[in-house]
Amino acid sequence: MQNPNIINGVNVDDLTATMEAIQENPAIASFQFKARNQWVQGGLNQTTISDFYGACEERQHKNTFVLKADEPAVLLSTDEGANPVEYALTALASCVTTALVYHAAARGIRIECVESTLEGDLDIQGLLGMDENVRRGYEGVRMTFKMKGDMPQEEMMEVLKLGPTFSPVFDIFTNKVPVTVMMEHNGEPMTIMQA
Amino acid sequence: MQNPNIINGVNVDDLTATMEAIQENPAIASFQFKARNQWVQGGLNQTTISDFYGACEERQHKNTFVLKADEPAVLLSTDEGANPVEYALTALASCVTTALVYHAAARGIRIECVESTLEGDLDIQGLLGMDENVRRGYEGVRMTFKMKGDMPQEEMMEVLKLGPTFSPVFDIFTNKVPVTVMMEHNGEPMTIMQA
Repeated sequence: MQNPNIINGVNVDDLTATMEAIQENPAIASFQFKARNQWVQGGLNQTTISDFYGACEERQHKNTFVLKADEPAVLLSTDEGANPVEYALTALASCVTTALVYHAAARGIRIECVESTLEGDLDIQGLLGMDENVRRGYEGVRMTFKMKGDMPQEEMMEVLKLGPTFSPVFDIFTNKVPVTVMMEHNGEPMTIMQA
Repeated sequence: MQNPNIINGVNVDDLTATMEAIQENPAIASFQFKARNQWVQGGLNQTTISDFYGACEERQHKNTFVLKADEPAVLLSTDEGANPVEYALTALASCVTTALVYHAAARGIRIECVESTLEGDLDIQGLLGMDENVRRGYEGVRMTFKMKGDMPQEEMMEVLKLGPTFSPVFDIFTNKVPVTVMMEHNGEPMTIMQA
């Protein structure tokens, strides 16, 4: 038996096998991720992540993840968790990093260290509905990476580009996602908004 | 002294005072949210949320929030946390709920209960770079709400619409956000991608 080919903590043999299996049967690539949210009070609510569908079956995470969101006192709540737009930055940071690390591994490129800091500009006149010309979401986001690896600076910049290029959440931020909002009425979902 | 006017856990007097202050000085409405991410290994990384800028000053959260992201075994990692696209659903669910609760409170509408379930469709051929015609991010997201409140069904549907209408993360999903990716080189940030 050969040792598995592990780069950046990613088993590249398994990654290659996964891609080969998808090429034979693209249905393996269809995933559905899920979340349940329950409002608690004011700006405090709780999201539970426990299961998803992927590679042709329903699957359970090893643990159930419970994520509290809240707003700080200046935004009139109890500050028991990161707020929703901070969760959005968390999604973006984690996704670009994972895409970078996996795609580097697939190319045989070893990375020693990746860190990033993110800033997002939000004018709350938008979300408060005070000014129609101010958007609700981030007006702009900046991500700054520090990376270490045994390669010249120019190559490092090319490797870093793999992150945003292949990241699903970078795509969600920078392109439009169709979202349907429904309300359950007598056990049946009724569509109330599509965007 | 009058009792404060609290609806849905939101102090509506403070909300009104905040909006009046912003009308006098719109600079109060400029917020900047921040996140720091550190890669650990494979699909595991950690985001730290501790401070933000808002209402004209740098502010600290009551606690520092540390959020682990990871991928499940079928996506070749150790399943120590929700994955990045599950964090994106968390951001969306929490934001629409908070926007709904606050805007209902501002209109004097009492809500008893809000729950939602979210599903997002992701074809991983996109993020793996296997098919240029498959997008990296969600192809579509469905949010289904259950609500309780002392009002007729038609009014409940109108109240629910306040959530997506005013939610920053709903805007981030359904519209484009400009994102700049930089790499630090000799202490200076160099732009490597703008989208």
